[in-house]
Amino acid sequence: MRTELCDRFGIQYPIFAFTPSEHVAAAVSRAGGLGVLGAVRFNEADELDRTLDWLDDNTDGKPYGVDVVMPMKVPTEGKAIDLKAMIPDEHISFVERTLQQLGVPPLPEGEGRDGVLGWLHSVARSHVDVALNHRPVLIANALGSPPKDVIDQAHAAGVQVAALAGAAKHALSHVANGVDIIIAQGYEAGGHTGEIASMVLTPEIVDAVGPDVAVLGAGGIGRGRQVAASLALGAQGVWTGSVWLTTEEYQNLNTNAGMTEAFLRASSADTVRTRIYTGKPARLLKTKWTEAWDEEKAPSPLPMPLQNLLVADAHSRMNSAGNPDVISMPVGQIVGSMNEVRPVAEVMADLINEYEETVKRLSSL
Amino acid sequence: MRTELCDRFGIQYPIFAFTPSEHVAAAVSRAGGLGVLGAVRFNEADELDRTLDWLDDNTDGKPYGVDVVMPMKVPTEGKAIDLKAMIPDEHISFVERTLQQLGVPPLPEGEGRDGVLGWLHSVARSHVDVALNHRPVLIANALGSPPKDVIDQAHAAGVQVAALAGAAKHALSHVANGVDIIIAQGYEAGGHTGEIASMVLTPEIVDAVGPDVAVLGAGGIGRGRQVAASLALGAQGVWTGSVWLTTEEYQNLNTNAGMTEAFLRASSADTVRTRIYTGKPARLLKTKWTEAWDEEKAPSPLPMPLQNLLVADAHSRMNSAGNPDVISMPVGQIVGSMNEVRPVAEVMADLINEYEETVKRLSSL
Repeated sequence: MRTELCDRFGIQYPIFAFTPSEHVAAAVSRAGGLGVLGAVRFNEADELDRTLDWLDDNTDGKPYGVDVVMPMKVPTEGKAIDLKAMIPDEHISFVERTLQQLGVPPLPEGEGRDGVLGWLHSVARSHVDVALNHRPVLIANALGSPPKDVIDQAHAAGVQVAALAGAAKHALSHVANGVDIIIAQGYEAGGHTGEIASMVLTPEIVDAVGPDVAVLGAGGIGRGRQVAASLALGAQGVWTGSVWLTTEEYQNLNTNAGMTEAFLRASSADTVRTRIYTGKPARLLKTKWTEAWDEEKAPSPLPMPLQNLLVADAHSRMNSAGNPDVISMPVGQIVGSMNEVRPVAEVMADLINEYEETVKRLSSL
Repeated sequence: MRTELCDRFGIQYPIFAFTPSEHVAAAVSRAGGLGVLGAVRFNEADELDRTLDWLDDNTDGKPYGVDVVMPMKVPTEGKAIDLKAMIPDEHISFVERTLQQLGVPPLPEGEGRDGVLGWLHSVARSHVDVALNHRPVLIANALGSPPKDVIDQAHAAGVQVAALAGAAKHALSHVANGVDIIIAQGYEAGGHTGEIASMVLTPEIVDAVGPDVAVLGAGGIGRGRQVAASLALGAQGVWTGSVWLTTEEYQNLNTNAGMTEAFLRASSADTVRTRIYTGKPARLLKTKWTEAWDEEKAPSPLPMPLQNLLVADAHSRMNSAGNPDVISMPVGQIVGSMNEVRPVAEVMADLINEYEETVKRLSSL
């Protein structure tokens, strides 16, 4: 499973693992893939700094990446408090009423947070600044091409830039901006995603950007057969995410047993693509929370970044309450095959072994 | 590209081609795949009979299949005239008003039809009866498992039965009913389709039905890389459809140059999954017609088989008028790669060559 990306990054397998957990990221990198730490959860740059210190010390010198969430165009911005003033009362009361109806308790005294500020442009920039003081080999942006000066900043530090794309025309525009690697994010993926499925999107983007730009296949990849399929479609590697949510290492970050139970029992039909998480279409686990937003009386989701500010407290409350029926979490259709909690190293070994069996099977046909 | 299905059906490549055109079906079978003639367009059993006579004479003795549209449960049924009485006036006037607004002329004098009766259970049964008087090797059902006695009837004639499934639980139920081959129809496919994309659905169904039941991958397949991806996912062959709509042979059936133009210029983003074609979710080319049904004032689509009776005349009018902006036609996301009109033999050769290059590339990694 060696492609040019293995040499470029000094990794053994072109398996890229997006994860908000430094424990998962480190374990993937140690196992020969590239762990990519999601920075959006860090409201304070210092906290990201300390976490990257930990990653520097726990990857056996292996490379890793950092993922930020940064729109290319700088949006209207302000302190969280200013933005909150833009949220209609109707939305606030719908959220509160829904949480009550679903039996979600308030947060324990002393807990709580100011929303996820990582969606703000200024905070995402601070993530890049902090990351470049460490030794990432890749900065990935979940919202497409970052601004040109951020790309230049990464390149000046010798760091490659990857960007998600859900359509060939977006991929071409990312490349024109200087992005090095395109992540072809198919419809079936968790989190922000478009409507074109991986089977069609991956070769379309590969053909559009040409042989000089590496493409990672993303969406629906959790087994070695899917890695082989993605490389067959022309990808130089795969971008995975959901599959790491049921690893042992992820439980360091996720102390909500209800969420793990919800993942383990979900079928591939139990996800929904909706704007209720951030204001842009993203695939989430289907729960009573997502169903409430589908009802006729529910308000329309707000644009980014308002929607996430609206629901951030609700997310904290749901996700600390531990009821598997009422949680809010992005996950892809691959959730149907996530049926037990396993160590990262075991998931990696299965990906690699099943990939090798698959290529052997194809060669023998 | 030889799998067990090649021996089972006496074909060279496990490439199954669903098409309403006997010219396409014959050309695919002659080129080593299995052409499968869609019967739903034949209101009169005699017409299907004559067409299968033609197919018997034009496939150089190679095998072919027939595709019917038959719900497992026998629905409320009646003559077309009775069913039409169940259609609300609001729907009829919306259709007429929309056609006027879109500038669709009435049909030329003497043309017209009674809707597509092939959606009716009794008509689909007559298709099976007629087909079994010829030499098909496969009866496929686009609506999942046919009734048990139809499966028995096919088996008694030595004919295999295939059924579409959009979820593993449906596939298991088809197998329990005696279906021989499962067509895993991913979200990206044209026509009736579910929400789970091929990358996730194919291995899920393969694992669910086990090694004794062959699975065909369907949805998003129009290039050799996609054939390789589908076989990597565990399919024993592929089920294709959209890709044949822009072949030279298809132009024998489709005399509407506007429709061909619409396919050629469409990108993979220009399709929509909607209930307006038959009452069940099906993927269509996105046109001003599909957009009209998305507007707020549009009525909700009717259940099958009423919706197709409602819009059948409108389809005839639009599809004979030749305006590429206003047509009604099922097609999958692969339409984005259908960019020229080519002979079937050339499409087949490309599928096979690109498949072989892909497997060679994978083996060398």
